[in-house]
Amino acid sequence: MSNSRKPLDRLPGMTSIEDAPYADQAATEALTLSQLAELAGVSVATVSKVVNGRSEVGSETRALVESLIQEHGFRRQRRRIRPAGLIEVVFHELAGDYPIEIVKGVQSVARGHRLSVVVSELGGRHIPGHRWIEDVLSRRPAGVITVFSGPTEEQRAQLAAREVPLVVLDPAGDPGRGVPSVGATNWSGGLEATRHLLELGHRRIAMIAGPEFALSSRARLDGYRAALDGAGVPVDPDLIRRGSFLIDDGVLHTRRLMALPQPPTAIFAANDGLAMGVYHAAHELGLRVPKDLSVVGFDDMPPWRWAIPPLTTVRQPLIEMGATAAATVISMAEGEPFQRRVELGTELVVRASTAAVRG
Amino acid sequence: MSNSRKPLDRLPGMTSIEDAPYADQAATEALTLSQLAELAGVSVATVSKVVNGRSEVGSETRALVESLIQEHGFRRQRRRIRPAGLIEVVFHELAGDYPIEIVKGVQSVARGHRLSVVVSELGGRHIPGHRWIEDVLSRRPAGVITVFSGPTEEQRAQLAAREVPLVVLDPAGDPGRGVPSVGATNWSGGLEATRHLLELGHRRIAMIAGPEFALSSRARLDGYRAALDGAGVPVDPDLIRRGSFLIDDGVLHTRRLMALPQPPTAIFAANDGLAMGVYHAAHELGLRVPKDLSVVGFDDMPPWRWAIPPLTTVRQPLIEMGATAAATVISMAEGEPFQRRVELGTELVVRASTAAVRG
Repeated sequence: MSNSRKPLDRLPGMTSIEDAPYADQAATEALTLSQLAELAGVSVATVSKVVNGRSEVGSETRALVESLIQEHGFRRQRRRIRPAGLIEVVFHELAGDYPIEIVKGVQSVARGHRLSVVVSELGGRHIPGHRWIEDVLSRRPAGVITVFSGPTEEQRAQLAAREVPLVVLDPAGDPGRGVPSVGATNWSGGLEATRHLLELGHRRIAMIAGPEFALSSRARLDGYRAALDGAGVPVDPDLIRRGSFLIDDGVLHTRRLMALPQPPTAIFAANDGLAMGVYHAAHELGLRVPKDLSVVGFDDMPPWRWAIPPLTTVRQPLIEMGATAAATVISMAEGEPFQRRVELGTELVVRASTAAVRG
Repeated sequence: MSNSRKPLDRLPGMTSIEDAPYADQAATEALTLSQLAELAGVSVATVSKVVNGRSEVGSETRALVESLIQEHGFRRQRRRIRPAGLIEVVFHELAGDYPIEIVKGVQSVARGHRLSVVVSELGGRHIPGHRWIEDVLSRRPAGVITVFSGPTEEQRAQLAAREVPLVVLDPAGDPGRGVPSVGATNWSGGLEATRHLLELGHRRIAMIAGPEFALSSRARLDGYRAALDGAGVPVDPDLIRRGSFLIDDGVLHTRRLMALPQPPTAIFAANDGLAMGVYHAAHELGLRVPKDLSVVGFDDMPPWRWAIPPLTTVRQPLIEMGATAAATVISMAEGEPFQRRVELGTELVVRASTAAVRG
């Protein structure tokens, strides 16, 4: 029962959380609210206040309860989520295929629990506003999933105080202490993409990395560096460019890269949008992909499978990430064990935009 | 106050339904439940039963009330929608940019009313199942918007009986008697796309039309025919192909069209996905777009703006369609006047996939 390792094992068509709980040994042995209260010799209400980050508890009592939680772990009481409840999915921006894939995944799991999926966007911001949290609290959802964005510490405390569980999907920054997150193996993806180009004989491999603030960008860039190091190819700082995840930035940086005295023979773009920008700049400069320039993207968004030539890219399992985030938030709501950090595997998909370096 | 003609006039940033109600003369003069009851000499409850399609009313009384409604029109009592309520948006399928654009529009209006947006999909079906209606009814949303799909007559009656208003967006078939719908000017769009090709000197213009069952496909095809007729160009049935809205069908039909003894010099595809299929088949056959073959799409989905060459297409204002559907369903919920049939304007966007026919 408790040694299924990957949450994905039971995601497709899953309808009950009971039949295959997550393997999280620490959580299954942890104490409940009333067990902690008994050990500390205080009321259940007091332990609950500490757990939920409320202020009206003496510092000594708080310290005692917190040390017990550290020692034994804390497990919420099992409870049933109310039927016809809601799961909130919050995006910083609704654009492109990325949100749709995630909603699809969330919905596939929510449906089995008769939960409906509320979708909202933060108008491009990565931190929800004042009004967002008010609205969320008034809806009392079974759980909240924030995507590439995260509530403030205060907002997290407000959610916790109402026992509304939170999961951060594809965390942009640090998801916050104790907040579970679901992501992809971005570092391995970056490594694999770069290795693929190295195996094709490329040595001048540029990277158009994503935004500085995003952990996922950093991980992909580190994977790129690790692959070069592993192959004994020196990392040339001129070949590393920083962009947002937008197509325009791909165009801009490719123009600059190809104007270098020693231009790259391959470009690894940190997402498919940037890779499309590479295609455009290449076309503009009269370069053929992959004959004159190899290109690898990241994400595997459906439209770019139809690019000419079809894009070689690192698949990020967005649907499964959405499903895992939903399963996690539901487990939390039901007081079931869950995994605090999940990174789902990425996979290199070789299509037609990469070729052996010209001799 | 009552002569703003287009709902779009007041959509951006709108926060109150009061300040600029829709112009719907028939609806503003219509009678309320209690006025109808007085005229008919029956109870308000009886009129309500007739209005909501319930069966437990004698046929004579029903006929009387229905004739009064036909004569005077019926207007729901004004009421406030409850805060933190829901708008349900139902898609037959979550795929591509189409749903995201619509959700964006719905959300922009819902937010001003502190309504949250529940998104669900029907797994590719165009008619919601049994369980869908149960879940929706248990959530008691402020309103339901179905996209390219529609509830059965029975499901519509169930919604009506609970005073949950329904709007059909981009109706696939007939939206049902009395059900408001929001769409785009598909016929005009088809006309404009074809005229553009005629103006460039093309005479062998093929159309890859969308699926038979969709009203929007039919309207685009009729617009194509009307443009050819208007220019005195005979409609060649060999040049009209039927596809789903999928890229693969675009590839398939283009291969067949280009194998005709007299192949077309231009193809009008009923959506951007089909147009991408045309690009692929052209590439495969060694034809250059637009030099050897002009291509026009329909929708103006963000990714295809980045096709090489950028796609000439007919823009369908999906965000505004979502916003209008939300405004309509909120007006209905609040007992405010609304427009029963809205078709928002399409617009030809000329990019680089169309050129003058070769002499």
